[in-house]
Amino acid sequence: MALIVSYPTPAGPRYGLVIEGVIHEWQASLFDDDTFTPGRPLMPVENTQLNPPVQPGKIVCIGRNYAAHAAEQNAAVPDEPMLFLKPPSALIGSGATIEIPAGIGRVDHESELAVIIGRRARRVSRDAALDYVLGYTCANDVSARAYQKKDGQWGRAKGFDTFCPLGPWINTDLDPADVAVRCRVNGELRQDGRTAQLVFDVPALIEFISGVMTLLPGDLILTGTPSGISELHDGDVVQVEVEGIGVLENPVRVLQP
Amino acid sequence: MALIVSYPTPAGPRYGLVIEGVIHEWQASLFDDDTFTPGRPLMPVENTQLNPPVQPGKIVCIGRNYAAHAAEQNAAVPDEPMLFLKPPSALIGSGATIEIPAGIGRVDHESELAVIIGRRARRVSRDAALDYVLGYTCANDVSARAYQKKDGQWGRAKGFDTFCPLGPWINTDLDPADVAVRCRVNGELRQDGRTAQLVFDVPALIEFISGVMTLLPGDLILTGTPSGISELHDGDVVQVEVEGIGVLENPVRVLQP
Repeated sequence: MALIVSYPTPAGPRYGLVIEGVIHEWQASLFDDDTFTPGRPLMPVENTQLNPPVQPGKIVCIGRNYAAHAAEQNAAVPDEPMLFLKPPSALIGSGATIEIPAGIGRVDHESELAVIIGRRARRVSRDAALDYVLGYTCANDVSARAYQKKDGQWGRAKGFDTFCPLGPWINTDLDPADVAVRCRVNGELRQDGRTAQLVFDVPALIEFISGVMTLLPGDLILTGTPSGISELHDGDVVQVEVEGIGVLENPVRVLQP
Repeated sequence: MALIVSYPTPAGPRYGLVIEGVIHEWQASLFDDDTFTPGRPLMPVENTQLNPPVQPGKIVCIGRNYAAHAAEQNAAVPDEPMLFLKPPSALIGSGATIEIPAGIGRVDHESELAVIIGRRARRVSRDAALDYVLGYTCANDVSARAYQKKDGQWGRAKGFDTFCPLGPWINTDLDPADVAVRCRVNGELRQDGRTAQLVFDVPALIEFISGVMTLLPGDLILTGTPSGISELHDGDVVQVEVEGIGVLENPVRVLQP
């Protein structure tokens, strides 16, 4: 079991292991090691601006995967997973600022459990699915509601730079079957679901997606958001917490034109 | 001016320059050279199985960007570009097989001009937009119509492995304002548009997209398909031709379960 973090250095992003709140050096590469042997301690994770913990080739997202969220959006629960993509350019790490362009209307948080693929997965059965997972982290599928509705396709609404906070780190040893997924805005609880409420659970999602498209190491699956979405405003601080992982925290700023 | 091709070697994909039908060695990297000095000649391009000419971080696609295609889909022409994404795992090169899973219903070709970004573009004006382009190639936005309709979002319908043929090569010196975009199936002309008919032209697309998401070197923009889409069947050979670039040719196979 390990908590894997990516932190910036003058020479570029480096991976480390978090042990008792301290980032330790880690020499191995993300996909070729399961011993997680730490090097020397570096610095407290709390004071470090973190990178997104992975650089995915694609971010596959699932729409309406909690019944209560589908209901609050006046949408039906799909009988198969509904897939859409977010661009990797939208990723930011914990601590970085969600930047909302002025005048784009309502922008909401969506707290989600994120799955990080560890090895190439093509047509994987649900029984074997979790063997293809490197670990889990927290994600915020920030969404501009007016553009979702106007465009029909969600490429713009969910694709702005900074609209995919991810982190704070990867937990390689989580059981994703029934953990809490929460969102707080300025400390106030807004979303409070459990992955046991997922319409399609993590093994089902990996089976379904890998039957369509090959999943590669580092690819992300954002598993959907529970009910309780709400609007973000300038100056807010939004926290996504997945039980057993940690807290992804990002301030919000509305960019003036 | 250069035609840049990616070809497989035992050590992995390599870039070369096509001169009079022959692939020549090229030592430079894709984004750091504009001299295009060829090395020694290697082999005729005609007999070579090509890779997709770029490995993009994201593939940004435009829906309904030719009025006649929107009309044949009974859809309105949007007043702003409609963005969606295809996964990079869907890419294949010219000559590779489009593999259609059995039982997924009608699957269509969509011939398109593809733009390859050459350098980081964020909030670029249309006047400066073409300075951010490395070059152009041909793309086929293969689409499963039943899933497009059923899912609402197009992540599955357009995201299957092999559903993004790209190539045969990059032309670094095309004027994208008014070139023919054609599709032939088994030699028969099905689509025959011109980029002058684009609702949003290439500079407008780069301005719009880069105002939403940062475009990075290698990122692709698929500019939309003209009218004349038609169904693909097992054994077909589909050719996408963009005037001034070349012909992207792919056989079609329906995979039995």
